[in-house]
Amino acid sequence: MRHLLSMEDLDRDRIETILERAASFAEVSRREIKKVPTLRGQTVVTLFYESSTRTSSSFELAAKRLSADVVSVKAGGSSVDKGESLKDTIETLSAYDPAAIVLRHPYAGSSRMLTEWVDAAVINAGDGMHQHPSQALLDIFTLRNRIGSLEGANIWIVGDVLHSRVARSNIQGFQQMGASVTVAGPPTLIPRGIESTGCEVRYSLDEIDSADVLYLLRMQRERMGENFVPSIREYARLFQMNTRRLGPRQLVMHPGPVNRGVEISSDVIDSDQTLISEQVASGLVVRMAILYELLTGRERTGNGSAPDDPVPIGEPA
Amino acid sequence: MRHLLSMEDLDRDRIETILERAASFAEVSRREIKKVPTLRGQTVVTLFYESSTRTSSSFELAAKRLSADVVSVKAGGSSVDKGESLKDTIETLSAYDPAAIVLRHPYAGSSRMLTEWVDAAVINAGDGMHQHPSQALLDIFTLRNRIGSLEGANIWIVGDVLHSRVARSNIQGFQQMGASVTVAGPPTLIPRGIESTGCEVRYSLDEIDSADVLYLLRMQRERMGENFVPSIREYARLFQMNTRRLGPRQLVMHPGPVNRGVEISSDVIDSDQTLISEQVASGLVVRMAILYELLTGRERTGNGSAPDDPVPIGEPA
Amino acid sequence: MRHLLSMEDLDRDRIETILERAASFAEVSRREIKKVPTLRGQTVVTLFYESSTRTSSSFELAAKRLSADVVSVKAGGSSVDKGESLKDTIETLSAYDPAAIVLRHPYAGSSRMLTEWVDAAVINAGDGMHQHPSQALLDIFTLRNRIGSLEGANIWIVGDVLHSRVARSNIQGFQQMGASVTVAGPPTLIPRGIESTGCEVRYSLDEIDSADVLYLLRMQRERMGENFVPSIREYARLFQMNTRRLGPRQLVMHPGPVNRGVEISSDVIDSDQTLISEQVASGLVVRMAILYELLTGRERTGNGSAPDDPVPIGEPA
Repeated sequence: MRHLLSMEDLDRDRIETILERAASFAEVSRREIKKVPTLRGQTVVTLFYESSTRTSSSFELAAKRLSADVVSVKAGGSSVDKGESLKDTIETLSAYDPAAIVLRHPYAGSSRMLTEWVDAAVINAGDGMHQHPSQALLDIFTLRNRIGSLEGANIWIVGDVLHSRVARSNIQGFQQMGASVTVAGPPTLIPRGIESTGCEVRYSLDEIDSADVLYLLRMQRERMGENFVPSIREYARLFQMNTRRLGPRQLVMHPGPVNRGVEISSDVIDSDQTLISEQVASGLVVRMAILYELLTGRERTGNGSAPDDPVPIGEPA
Repeated sequence: MRHLLSMEDLDRDRIETILERAASFAEVSRREIKKVPTLRGQTVVTLFYESSTRTSSSFELAAKRLSADVVSVKAGGSSVDKGESLKDTIETLSAYDPAAIVLRHPYAGSSRMLTEWVDAAVINAGDGMHQHPSQALLDIFTLRNRIGSLEGANIWIVGDVLHSRVARSNIQGFQQMGASVTVAGPPTLIPRGIESTGCEVRYSLDEIDSADVLYLLRMQRERMGENFVPSIREYARLFQMNTRRLGPRQLVMHPGPVNRGVEISSDVIDSDQTLISEQVASGLVVRMAILYELLTGRERTGNGSAPDDPVPIGEPA
Repeated sequence: MRHLLSMEDLDRDRIETILERAASFAEVSRREIKKVPTLRGQTVVTLFYESSTRTSSSFELAAKRLSADVVSVKAGGSSVDKGESLKDTIETLSAYDPAAIVLRHPYAGSSRMLTEWVDAAVINAGDGMHQHPSQALLDIFTLRNRIGSLEGANIWIVGDVLHSRVARSNIQGFQQMGASVTVAGPPTLIPRGIESTGCEVRYSLDEIDSADVLYLLRMQRERMGENFVPSIREYARLFQMNTRRLGPRQLVMHPGPVNRGVEISSDVIDSDQTLISEQVASGLVVRMAILYELLTGRERTGNGSAPDDPVPIGEPA
């Protein structure tokens, strides 16, 4: 595995390898000294053309906990303002010989284009409405920690599937792990032909009782202005997850940031059935695992440094 | 001491402990290698909802000089843009299991709220008009370095006391250390009933000769538009500290950033009687001390690592 | 050498010293662990009043690869918003006792002013239309790596020379290394009297065949609105470097970011005759060399730590 571009590229074995590595980093994260020297002296570049707290800070801290030097570039306050194209910006940044480049960019396929221009490992942190594979991996990791295995689980993905890269990645990831996936939402927000991916489609929550897990998507307020849904209130009436709808053994997930009172009610956010904060914590260790697998896999395979036991950094004696 | 929220929570002993620790870090800051390994492998999050150079860079560098990994989130260019509430943002960030969260937020009481949501030590770096305790501590540290003790000192806090969290923290801090405090400013900018905190009130600088120290507050230009004062010129005529007013043994302090020519004249800024740059330098070591006391106090009390002699980081032999 | 303010301050010996150091850091950059412990425990401040990806990230990473702690302040999202003057901002930042301050500021001479206010080494990363010496040094380094020596080379600097700090620095730097320099552009964009610096002047590309190296300047789109040139299209017709104009042995350089299709055509950007990505890679190691020379020169001259063989950082055994 040289890059992480799309869940389509990952078979179940590859996913298992990343999840096992993430579990070993979860153990490191519980130590007093939460870092390992794996990427010391190497550089990780994060390049975000869209705003983000969650994903960018998660990748940055993941790289720092592997002891890498991090260069973070955000659109705004940089040459990106001056109309520099992605290609020219990348040429600039790849001159630093980074081990990995983490890219979020509004155009679908931007990460794959990158792989033709650079030697670095490319990690897709969201390319338009296309893919967001580290989100799918952290969601699988989170869910497996709670329910053991996804085999046979019935997972509903609810909301604006049409515009969601998270939905696209997670349908593939959940299915790869043996779950069956149903997408549900207003007809305007469900892409035509999505049944061909092997998932079921519902246009209401009438049969929601059959779900084990409800994966809610963020309802962008701008969709209202674009006439995809008549109003926030109407959307919430039909598709909000609240304590009236939620069954006693159903689990709730959300990629964040949530719209309290829109796709999810406040009491559900704060309930024990909700895995949102586990998802964020998983994000850190899963991203450490992704960086580890991409950057140490080639050189280190088969040598003595046992990959599931990273050496802790000690203070000088 | 688990958190630093308000000067009200600190008795004189606690303040002394922090100041002594800060003095030991001032010594570290004069070395070639200005850092210690205390927080290696731990994470410090800074979360600023209001712009700041001074306070945010000071906390960030303080954490780095203790060898922590720092995650800095600023409102703007992040999910904060997307309307994520403080609670949801904190849930995201606390998933990284930070040792400390440093918060600046426009609502009074926001830091205290935080302590109910997170395991991390919470440091209030300014909550609305309420408190800014690290400022008070660095001001006490700075002043004590110059005059030895605050016992019996006569300190005037001059300007917009009404809107100032610095004034609120410093009145308590200076009094705790034995100083007597007078607040002075236009009647519209002095809160009613402030005498109950034990300070005197003046509405002019007529008796300014009695002061040992003049602590000037920043005059926000927006107060003019809000009709708290008739004009900048009028405010400066009545309350500006300039060489005509300043006595030869009086000291001048200011939390920064200054408005040259408004609350303070340029020649006073650049005079030897002014402690402004000492205040900034103190900010760094006092914030190192705050982090140290909050994060090592519990586990390390009574063990062999002498707290007033942090181990220096050496280069590999 | 205490500061790096202008190419005027550097004689050929000094330039050679920096280039040799840069070559040794280029070697470090090819290692697995791309950093050295030289500035461990020291602080480097970068203060940018103008947006930049290239220069700011290059200096930040250079400092990190020397193991310094970096404080980065950008205008916007900081007290700079509050109208703090350069002097007050610097007083704040110099209170951290930084080893070096890297400044980009719109006023010519701002860096030299700084040297009177601070103890730190000051590096001019661009002061208005005046100077940008690290750019000239990295360009010399890049060109020498390709052609061996600049002695007798014929270098044309093409475009908006009038507004370009890069042109001013590079004319001096290239001449210092023995090259002869011609500036070419529309008469409105060539400063009067520039011949006094020893360079030739041309108002067209008619004699471009005589050049060994074409150094293209960025054509700011705002110059059109200011009537310096009639239109982008007209400028491109007369001065764009494209495959029709470019001779088979001529080299092309550009300080970036490029305007594709304005001063340079896309096929020239991607050609082997173009050194743009080498320039960026050189930026990193030349800036490491600048920091090294400024910060270790005084104390370490003549002692045992061989300057051309920096000790690599090893992982703990």
